[in-house]
Amino acid sequence: MLKDSVRTKTYQNAIYQNAFLFKDKVVLDVGAGTGILSLFCAKTGAKHVYAVECSIMADTAIEIVKANGYSNVVTVLKGKVEEIELPSKVDVIISEWMGYFLLFENMVNSVLFARDKWLVPGGAVLPDRTSLYLTAIEDADYKLDKIDFWKNVYGFDMSCVRKQAMLEPLVDTVDQNQIVTNCQLLKTMDIEKMDSRDVSFSAPFKLVAQRNDYVHALVAYFDVSFTKCHKPIGFSTGPRSRPTHWKQTVLYLEDDLTMCEGEAVTGTMSVSLNSKNPRDIDIKLTYHFNGKRSQASRTQEYRMR
Amino acid sequence: MLKDSVRTKTYQNAIYQNAFLFKDKVVLDVGAGTGILSLFCAKTGAKHVYAVECSIMADTAIEIVKANGYSNVVTVLKGKVEEIELPSKVDVIISEWMGYFLLFENMVNSVLFARDKWLVPGGAVLPDRTSLYLTAIEDADYKLDKIDFWKNVYGFDMSCVRKQAMLEPLVDTVDQNQIVTNCQLLKTMDIEKMDSRDVSFSAPFKLVAQRNDYVHALVAYFDVSFTKCHKPIGFSTGPRSRPTHWKQTVLYLEDDLTMCEGEAVTGTMSVSLNSKNPRDIDIKLTYHFNGKRSQASRTQEYRMR
Repeated sequence: MLKDSVRTKTYQNAIYQNAFLFKDKVVLDVGAGTGILSLFCAKTGAKHVYAVECSIMADTAIEIVKANGYSNVVTVLKGKVEEIELPSKVDVIISEWMGYFLLFENMVNSVLFARDKWLVPGGAVLPDRTSLYLTAIEDADYKLDKIDFWKNVYGFDMSCVRKQAMLEPLVDTVDQNQIVTNCQLLKTMDIEKMDSRDVSFSAPFKLVAQRNDYVHALVAYFDVSFTKCHKPIGFSTGPRSRPTHWKQTVLYLEDDLTMCEGEAVTGTMSVSLNSKNPRDIDIKLTYHFNGKRSQASRTQEYRMR
Repeated sequence: MLKDSVRTKTYQNAIYQNAFLFKDKVVLDVGAGTGILSLFCAKTGAKHVYAVECSIMADTAIEIVKANGYSNVVTVLKGKVEEIELPSKVDVIISEWMGYFLLFENMVNSVLFARDKWLVPGGAVLPDRTSLYLTAIEDADYKLDKIDFWKNVYGFDMSCVRKQAMLEPLVDTVDQNQIVTNCQLLKTMDIEKMDSRDVSFSAPFKLVAQRNDYVHALVAYFDVSFTKCHKPIGFSTGPRSRPTHWKQTVLYLEDDLTMCEGEAVTGTMSVSLNSKNPRDIDIKLTYHFNGKRSQASRTQEYRMR
């Protein structure tokens, strides 16, 4: 994931170009991985950095911190941020917690937990803002290949697999030329202020066709901002931006919509953590389309797992 | 994996074009997945097919068999082939057991177990022959990107990750134009006759450069044959054949070899099941090169996991 340069370069710029946010500060890095963000903070003048990582990657991070001569500044703590102990509160929390569809694997709640337990009043969380967007795409070839393939597999009917395939949002890179409608903001999250319950939400959308085309799927993506920087810094994971390892999330529609320029598909998207496995995300999509050349009204459920 | 048409079409042809092997026979499908191979056998006239699958995919297979009207011919058994019971011995065992580097995940031993316990004397195992090959490639760009990347990651030394990256064979598609030397047969396995101990082996190799070039990695791949067919059928997973989901397995060398046309790198490759986790594969590579422009002699260890 370090090879996702959009991601890592944005964090690097946010840290190196804004030393005033880190100089002589105590920093907590939630889900530190190899420790790269902790090293950025140490290099830019942090007083101390606690790098919390619960996987065996923590052992690698310890080795990396030592190899780069920062063992006196960066302390790697192997464990869950919900369970570790720090000697003091921290001035800054930094984290790269975003998953596919922003919320998959639900690490944001670990950041919110760390914020509530360990951040000093008035402390900063970086990044501090993220938004989820929705748009609609033409995707005939891929839908045939990924979904309708199961209707006839070497002469056999595997429609029961097709049903499962429809339930699973597809994480893939969408070509910007496939976009048929506007992009609709669904939800903005302020990481410094939000409550963990805000991770579940329901939002209306209205997607207006910008040309005559077919719509086979809705596509979700997110952006991330560091608004505390001297000059705001961030990145988008949308189809019009440089690709990242998050790609986009494609939700295939049961109906193929024949949309004329100016016609709108409206509806609601509801997002919630799965009650049995809160790392999974349940998505409920209701859509209505009443066009000149096709009409559809349906509720579909998806699960990211 | 059904979408790997090289794989599935080869099995389909081996079965449909050789009905004489299946007509009125009792067949055991080891690791049946969706049940596609069992359905091929049923359609071509098998008397009965036992489709053994230990994952939850067995439930899907039951649904698919029913949807296609073969419930009276195909019986799906959910469980390990080492543990299930059959009402009688079988005439034919069919299985798609091959993993990355042929042996990864070691399902071949389940096929050998089924053969010894359930196959009638003189019964057939399909496919019945597989061979592992080795060649050498130029791969400067990718080695830099995948391996040497870790020497300087956004200004930090992560050489300890480089060490881990070198230990892990990379499963990826190699362009045939990268091949610098001949392709050397390492090992042929006869599935009807081999012993489970034959999965571990040691084989010498001699790879002779066919042009002046650099060598950064050795590449392993396998082929699979159905020699009992009226006309032998099979496929190769080599870089010169149509790509499959198995791709090839790339083993990076610590040394970059500067090879002149006609010069040879010689050595030995030893393959064994990991003693702690027999689904993992340990590979030990010893190589010697004494060229005009570079020399190297080294032993490297790898682990597929």
